[in-house]
Amino acid sequence: MRDFVPADKRRRERVLNKIRESYAAHGFDEIETPVVEDSERLHSGMGGDNEKLSFAILRRGLADSDLREAANKGEPLALSDLGLRFDLTVPLARFMATHRGTLPGVFRSLQIGPVWRAERPQKGRYRQFVQCDIDILGEPGQLAEAELLVAGSAALASLGLSSCTIRVNDRRLLNVLLDWCGFAPEHQPQALISIDKLDKIGTNGVVAELAETDSAAAERIHQALNNWAEGIKAGIPLTTESILASLPEGLRERTEAVEAAESLGQVAAAVAAGGGSLPLVFDPTLVRGMGYYTGTIFEVAHPESGSSVGGGGRYDGMIGRFLGQDVPACGFSIGFERIVDLVSELPEAEGETVIILVDKKLPVADVMRVKQTLLAPGRRVRIERRPKNVRNLLDRATAEGFTHVAQIREEQVENPETITLEPLGRNA
Amino acid sequence: MRDFVPADKRRRERVLNKIRESYAAHGFDEIETPVVEDSERLHSGMGGDNEKLSFAILRRGLADSDLREAANKGEPLALSDLGLRFDLTVPLARFMATHRGTLPGVFRSLQIGPVWRAERPQKGRYRQFVQCDIDILGEPGQLAEAELLVAGSAALASLGLSSCTIRVNDRRLLNVLLDWCGFAPEHQPQALISIDKLDKIGTNGVVAELAETDSAAAERIHQALNNWAEGIKAGIPLTTESILASLPEGLRERTEAVEAAESLGQVAAAVAAGGGSLPLVFDPTLVRGMGYYTGTIFEVAHPESGSSVGGGGRYDGMIGRFLGQDVPACGFSIGFERIVDLVSELPEAEGETVIILVDKKLPVADVMRVKQTLLAPGRRVRIERRPKNVRNLLDRATAEGFTHVAQIREEQVENPETITLEPLGRNA
Repeated sequence: MRDFVPADKRRRERVLNKIRESYAAHGFDEIETPVVEDSERLHSGMGGDNEKLSFAILRRGLADSDLREAANKGEPLALSDLGLRFDLTVPLARFMATHRGTLPGVFRSLQIGPVWRAERPQKGRYRQFVQCDIDILGEPGQLAEAELLVAGSAALASLGLSSCTIRVNDRRLLNVLLDWCGFAPEHQPQALISIDKLDKIGTNGVVAELAETDSAAAERIHQALNNWAEGIKAGIPLTTESILASLPEGLRERTEAVEAAESLGQVAAAVAAGGGSLPLVFDPTLVRGMGYYTGTIFEVAHPESGSSVGGGGRYDGMIGRFLGQDVPACGFSIGFERIVDLVSELPEAEGETVIILVDKKLPVADVMRVKQTLLAPGRRVRIERRPKNVRNLLDRATAEGFTHVAQIREEQVENPETITLEPLGRNA
Repeated sequence: MRDFVPADKRRRERVLNKIRESYAAHGFDEIETPVVEDSERLHSGMGGDNEKLSFAILRRGLADSDLREAANKGEPLALSDLGLRFDLTVPLARFMATHRGTLPGVFRSLQIGPVWRAERPQKGRYRQFVQCDIDILGEPGQLAEAELLVAGSAALASLGLSSCTIRVNDRRLLNVLLDWCGFAPEHQPQALISIDKLDKIGTNGVVAELAETDSAAAERIHQALNNWAEGIKAGIPLTTESILASLPEGLRERTEAVEAAESLGQVAAAVAAGGGSLPLVFDPTLVRGMGYYTGTIFEVAHPESGSSVGGGGRYDGMIGRFLGQDVPACGFSIGFERIVDLVSELPEAEGETVIILVDKKLPVADVMRVKQTLLAPGRRVRIERRPKNVRNLLDRATAEGFTHVAQIREEQVENPETITLEPLGRNA
């Protein structure tokens, strides 16, 4: 967990505000949920492996003596009833269950906030980090995918991250692939987990894992992966035709495969019509870890980042588990902590920022009068008592982004119209 | 703990951004600290009663069997090493200890963020709520008080809360009052706690509590409170002269009293010179709960709020406890959850907000093309499929703040220049 000093905080807020502006323009509405949720909900199985990384909050009013007594009797120790959220999706599902009656039938949600995971400290991994999710709830068709991808692309482009690429696949295509290879239905979830490791353990690693379950099926996957390798490298266009053309013969005739390819083609056409600014490519090996995805899935790559900088997909069954009534859902998440370092310097807000340099002995009321005189709409001022080494102070102020200095002589207090602003640094 | 639906979230963010703008203009720099701190630090005695209300986080890797073994052996149970912060002051003190070398010598900090207290659920009390603090660290003189009061007044005034009044006192004046009344030094902290309850239990209640310790001293306080009652009601001007005139004879001759009255007079003069927009009055009975205050203290009252909507003061000793080196400090906190409900409707951001009404059967790519056509800088668009009852939908959109509707006919998709925006609601 980290502190953010003023320069970092300013940068983070500027990036978040750019994202907020893009998403608001595209029709998303921001909501906020508490960072704490019931333990039971956090451990309902929807969070996958992240559930194991969640921080639990000690139950209030837990008397040490009661605990010892329970321990002595061998009774269960109920230590916690609340926990810190590990993602924004579980809270969103709970939010929908609570507020659905007051929300539009198709609800476009934007949620930005911190989440917590008890990760081992390592570079680029934090225990508290910000997630930035948009979700469309209530729209069963490809309009949801298209709006998310166009809005997400616009947000990334507004940050100057136009060299991102979006890899796209469909869980239904993965399912029919595994079926066609001969994996029994009960082995398919495990097979997906293996394929998801392709980036880390390579084709041979994946095939070796799969062969432990079913060697004939693994051999079919092996062939498919080999055949795809070059196409994926070059980028398979996201059109129904090239998707079907890339599939093994036999698989491409399956109804489920044709339907999924058509759906992906429609998503791509709609994104293009909507002005989506990032290239989309088909990646038949894209899995995305979470078990809840049911249709289109996507992941954003950036040439300067080793891991994905965003992603999402359709998860139609999940909200229904809280609501008791099915709600189609599709989401897109920006990996905020990863992109914030990729963003080049954003232009500072306009307006003058002024260091007011006053004599050490100037009475407080006079200092305040000068400050008041120099305050103006859109201007930022900071008072500094004149130090011995003025140059040092002004260099530092320039580095902090201040544009001007007002050096106040005592006789100017009564004649503020004689105060002048001298430009600093790049403005000098 | 609460969810915020879009209308609430929008309102809260608008209020926070107004506050941020005011504080930035007045020279404050925003920082961010993690919501989780070490348990040891949260329970170091600086948080007063709030320490008891803190949520503890269960230690990770705590094996049930180890816990039972420790319980059986009668060993201490170390259940928690982290906790949720209960205020922003303890994290600020820790932040200063970590980052002081990279910060300006006088650091004007702005911190906005959630804090947690395990309160019993009751109206107007939440377990998660937002605090909004400015602090000036490193400035020993009245310039700190003056800058905080002027910036705080400007923030409240920018929200239309110009009917606030700021009550001001000085802990040094309370100390010399208690001394003059005859309370022994060891009884003075408890006496302050009693006087702090004046609003709740009245003069007789306070005097009865004090009489349990020292009836002669309590009688002197009794007289002082009676003499002050009318002045406080009418408002004692915050000038050195009227402060001294309001003190009991004998007390007003004490050096400490004269010094405190002069200091408060200087604060008031500097606030006036700095354009402070809210009235300041002297309240000799103002205590403010926390034990760490050492000088000027202030509290903001609003006629429509039963409890204070902000406050703060000087706390010179506290930061030093973390830093091992003394740093003068003064802070001002806005009770965000209290003021957000007092703020009248703020003007919505400018720019058109457009509902795009499309036929249920319009292909997805066409819908996206229309959306793309209507996106424009500063404009917000939301797609809606045409329902049976269009009036209902438009009424709802109007209530949500949408300004226009674009009703799309199929033939317009290829001729977007024929699409018109019809005004909604107040714009119609």
